[in-house]
Amino acid sequence: MEPQVGLIMGSKSDWPTMEHAATMLDALGVAYETRVVSAHRTPDLLFDYARQAADRGLKVIIAGAGGAAHLPGMVASQTALPVLGVPVQSRTLNGLDSLLSIAQMPGGVAVGTLAIGKAGAKNAGLLASQILALTDRSVADAVARFRAQQTQDVLNNPDPQDHQD
Amino acid sequence: MEPQVGLIMGSKSDWPTMEHAATMLDALGVAYETRVVSAHRTPDLLFDYARQAADRGLKVIIAGAGGAAHLPGMVASQTALPVLGVPVQSRTLNGLDSLLSIAQMPGGVAVGTLAIGKAGAKNAGLLASQILALTDRSVADAVARFRAQQTQDVLNNPDPQDHQD
Amino acid sequence: MEPQVGLIMGSKSDWPTMEHAATMLDALGVAYETRVVSAHRTPDLLFDYARQAADRGLKVIIAGAGGAAHLPGMVASQTALPVLGVPVQSRTLNGLDSLLSIAQMPGGVAVGTLAIGKAGAKNAGLLASQILALTDRSVADAVARFRAQQTQDVLNNPDPQDHQD
Amino acid sequence: MEPQVGLIMGSKSDWPTMEHAATMLDALGVAYETRVVSAHRTPDLLFDYARQAADRGLKVIIAGAGGAAHLPGMVASQTALPVLGVPVQSRTLNGLDSLLSIAQMPGGVAVGTLAIGKAGAKNAGLLASQILALTDRSVADAVARFRAQQTQDVLNNPDPQDHQD
Amino acid sequence: MEPQVGLIMGSKSDWPTMEHAATMLDALGVAYETRVVSAHRTPDLLFDYARQAADRGLKVIIAGAGGAAHLPGMVASQTALPVLGVPVQSRTLNGLDSLLSIAQMPGGVAVGTLAIGKAGAKNAGLLASQILALTDRSVADAVARFRAQQTQDVLNNPDPQDHQD
Amino acid sequence: MEPQVGLIMGSKSDWPTMEHAATMLDALGVAYETRVVSAHRTPDLLFDYARQAADRGLKVIIAGAGGAAHLPGMVASQTALPVLGVPVQSRTLNGLDSLLSIAQMPGGVAVGTLAIGKAGAKNAGLLASQILALTDRSVADAVARFRAQQTQDVLNNPDPQDHQD
Amino acid sequence: MEPQVGLIMGSKSDWPTMEHAATMLDALGVAYETRVVSAHRTPDLLFDYARQAADRGLKVIIAGAGGAAHLPGMVASQTALPVLGVPVQSRTLNGLDSLLSIAQMPGGVAVGTLAIGKAGAKNAGLLASQILALTDRSVADAVARFRAQQTQDVLNNPDPQDHQD
Amino acid sequence: MEPQVGLIMGSKSDWPTMEHAATMLDALGVAYETRVVSAHRTPDLLFDYARQAADRGLKVIIAGAGGAAHLPGMVASQTALPVLGVPVQSRTLNGLDSLLSIAQMPGGVAVGTLAIGKAGAKNAGLLASQILALTDRSVADAVARFRAQQTQDVLNNPDPQDHQD
Repeated sequence: MEPQVGLIMGSKSDWPTMEHAATMLDALGVAYETRVVSAHRTPDLLFDYARQAADRGLKVIIAGAGGAAHLPGMVASQTALPVLGVPVQSRTLNGLDSLLSIAQMPGGVAVGTLAIGKAGAKNAGLLASQILALTDRSVADAVARFRAQQTQDVLNNPDPQDHQD
Repeated sequence: MEPQVGLIMGSKSDWPTMEHAATMLDALGVAYETRVVSAHRTPDLLFDYARQAADRGLKVIIAGAGGAAHLPGMVASQTALPVLGVPVQSRTLNGLDSLLSIAQMPGGVAVGTLAIGKAGAKNAGLLASQILALTDRSVADAVARFRAQQTQDVLNNPDPQDHQD
Repeated sequence: MEPQVGLIMGSKSDWPTMEHAATMLDALGVAYETRVVSAHRTPDLLFDYARQAADRGLKVIIAGAGGAAHLPGMVASQTALPVLGVPVQSRTLNGLDSLLSIAQMPGGVAVGTLAIGKAGAKNAGLLASQILALTDRSVADAVARFRAQQTQDVLNNPDPQDHQD
Repeated sequence: MEPQVGLIMGSKSDWPTMEHAATMLDALGVAYETRVVSAHRTPDLLFDYARQAADRGLKVIIAGAGGAAHLPGMVASQTALPVLGVPVQSRTLNGLDSLLSIAQMPGGVAVGTLAIGKAGAKNAGLLASQILALTDRSVADAVARFRAQQTQDVLNNPDPQDHQD
Repeated sequence: MEPQVGLIMGSKSDWPTMEHAATMLDALGVAYETRVVSAHRTPDLLFDYARQAADRGLKVIIAGAGGAAHLPGMVASQTALPVLGVPVQSRTLNGLDSLLSIAQMPGGVAVGTLAIGKAGAKNAGLLASQILALTDRSVADAVARFRAQQTQDVLNNPDPQDHQD
Repeated sequence: MEPQVGLIMGSKSDWPTMEHAATMLDALGVAYETRVVSAHRTPDLLFDYARQAADRGLKVIIAGAGGAAHLPGMVASQTALPVLGVPVQSRTLNGLDSLLSIAQMPGGVAVGTLAIGKAGAKNAGLLASQILALTDRSVADAVARFRAQQTQDVLNNPDPQDHQD
Repeated sequence: MEPQVGLIMGSKSDWPTMEHAATMLDALGVAYETRVVSAHRTPDLLFDYARQAADRGLKVIIAGAGGAAHLPGMVASQTALPVLGVPVQSRTLNGLDSLLSIAQMPGGVAVGTLAIGKAGAKNAGLLASQILALTDRSVADAVARFRAQQTQDVLNNPDPQDHQD
Repeated sequence: MEPQVGLIMGSKSDWPTMEHAATMLDALGVAYETRVVSAHRTPDLLFDYARQAADRGLKVIIAGAGGAAHLPGMVASQTALPVLGVPVQSRTLNGLDSLLSIAQMPGGVAVGTLAIGKAGAKNAGLLASQILALTDRSVADAVARFRAQQTQDVLNNPDPQDHQD
């Protein structure tokens, strides 16, 4: 199946965070590709990747980076595809720097920013799928089932003191 | 033309920020509706709005709110449509509270968060259009023209000391 | 004994924090119920819980959540009972996001916010009891004894270098 | 009518913030008294006020202060009445210092903290009334009417672009 | 020898921080007493301690506390002795709350604030000694020797790669 | 009268803040000198000033600076006199940078830090006087009168709604 | 004279900040060029500018940007010339976002970051000149004169209360 | 080979951070010296070191410090050599204090600030080398090789899921 989502990150060390996006995409049956693309170390690759993304059939790009996180915004500057940014938790400032570097884009180039860390990566996978679900019934169904399931999981385990969780 | 984007906000006082989303949608030829929906003062309306949005033909929801900004996340909990959140600049903490209240969603319910204030509202309109552009050629063309134009505007005015801007 | 306090939280993972509220309520002889209610994953349950709380005889609701913590404010939007919010310490931002998401409510819907984490949970149990103590002599006596005891504990152990604590 | 709520603040300069609590109490028909009580400049008065509050018939104390805001916590240390704290916006740090100084109380002495500034003051008046409403039907009715009215105000003005607000 | 410095703290759990003040005072030959005095749990003791401090012969008070740290400021409100405050590192916000709660005192009641944690406690002992040294030659000599020694320690170990440190 | 307090600041632009220290010293009858001493622009002057301060008869040094505020700490590194630091409110970060640059000194060189801005300057003048009051009866009396007066001012104006203040 | 320094910025609106760099370079006799180069709106221009800079004879690049400020880091990724970054004060977060977006670069691509706003721009001009001064005697002399002059300015105006400044 | 770079730090405990600067300088073939120079404990040494640096043949100074980090700015006040500052991660505030203390220098004395911690140290070594490379072909070649290598390393390992890294 052709990848619909490009899942890129600034460094291999971002994978333990970003794999949660991959897990969500897998769960929802969305095809994706993964790639290390560093804004700072491989700017040419960044440009090529972003500019060829639409022609290669990608529909959404998820980009994760930490610290002075320039990857999502720079990708967004080179493609008209929707770009979702995941602030990877940084060692020194807990990802506050990553969050601000991704979210505080100037008007004219947009990045949809998710939460810092694993929850954000998971939700990037989900939001990308929700975008694809606008025109893909099977993804829409998978999203609906996922949402229903997580609701049911809470309802089935109403007691916070119950250790069966 | 049927609205494709629901542009909602927690209070009328958010309009001076959120109108920048409307301006962008207008510029890109995307039909939208505007509505005040308060998570805290009109929770029933929030639920109804979010749950009926897809059936009413909306494709994307843009939600703006300030302070303990619960509107985007609560809308996202009731619909599978992509939800974009705009942190409105708050009086006391400059929108840092709005940003964290919108961006730091737990895994399982996603909000694509934009920048605090006007730039974020403008970009919410742009990102919503980029999502629609995946399946709407005329919006895609409008996005492409907008992007080309803003690039050209910089190139045409290369001198920061030139006061013709 | 009918529960007087509803002790709810967004996730089972909040229990290690929120159990300190339960411990305090137990110590002060206040009946309570515990329940996982997720604003984002179970919004229907949230609405039902909040709206039925008063009729079910609850007097105070304690709600704990972390990150973009919407549970306390959304409960407060659906009930006229006093709602106390506990910001659970989040993984990435240490609970600063939780605190701002709970405390910075707009005028018109109120949440009494406690400290981040265990101390806040403990104090939520205490403050709920102080509210009940306004009309319940036995709780008032229990609060008075607790307060006197903790004062005495300090007075009995005046020496910080003394390891008998 | 005997005051039910003690509305105190660290300085006369806090009144422009704290009067919003008074306005809410007035609107809900709750009797209150106002007083300047400075934790730092009048510690004796603080102690006397807090210790006599219950005997004087007060049911709830609302305390507002800014900067290193010690008033709410120190009042709470001297009375078993519920204490609500309002962080007044400070000149230099926008009230973040006030918020942390009030909210981050150690376990054992509780303050229910509201938002920074006017919204917080308004909500302190509301939350105090909600507490009193547990045993005062006329206050409960007033709270219900206020909540219904503010909901209706939003519903009656659904259009954010409408300037009649 | 009569204690010159009162070294107090809000909780026994502050001792691992505050003992660094004691170690410094010992090293400089300054007599001191240690005491747990909790602003919130033992307000009477706080008042008595602060008010009797000068008459009991104390010259400087060092007060350490964490979170919503009210001890230093409340002591300062009850005595004209110089009060030095040590922000103890808090669990959730790393002591930023402690620092702001101690440093941001309103005009009229002063606390000389040191750094968060152990370095601050050490320096509180040093600054208290520097104050006493204004009129106590032996303390002045001890301070001078300590300062000279720490300078010499750096000069004797100029190489950061040398592991003999 | 020989100056007892050296009141220095990094720039003339700090005077509108630091004059509040001077006003307090004047009110309490403490002689002082004022001087612009820039850590960065006049390091030699800084060294000379700090090293000669004790010999010139100064007892306490108050140093105010903003941004990367190095003046208080560098003065403290050159003299054994007690040094009080006033964080001047900076243009961009509201003085948070000034506060951290002054308060977060490493163990071994101490600065007693006051609040950001005018309140801090006023309190630096007060704390310097409290230090001098340990051995100067007339200053002690002046401090006592000042403190009594500000207490009385609050007590005389108990009503926050009274506009005679 | 061939420009030695490339002074670029993300938007014309940055000029009121960045002109302070130009003023400093003028004062020190360093030739420079100014150009608007937007990382997000003109990524091609950014790449071309950065890659040709060395061949065009530039020695240092000063790049100013605000918010999610990617310009300095992205320039640094395309050239081996020293890049100095100036965080322009942003509307909502006062430049804290700009500072973190520029300073927190990952290891392997370096940006020398100056202070937020005008002081930072001024110092970027100064630091660029200090770098050029390593091999240009006339610039070295100008830097020395500037530094001596600003020292003399302080020494000539020692009295902070003197209004002749 | 004569050292070109002075690599200094406030304490031996900064070495685990600062050694990453040394490693980079080694890798690029730049001669350097290392030295502990404490702004607060050895101000004389600081002055002597900074003032003699140029005459001793140093071209760039890298200074690392944590907390109220005064070393880089104070060195810059005594020499016209380019000074690069590395904010060492502090125990309590994660290096935010270090970053602000180094970056927020007033106009007139400049420090080029790098990222907090190891990445910043590594980049200080790199930026120093880039400065030297302006006039040293062999360093320029080494920088070019390093940059090409790190680009190649990413390109050679494009798959984030590949564990061979």
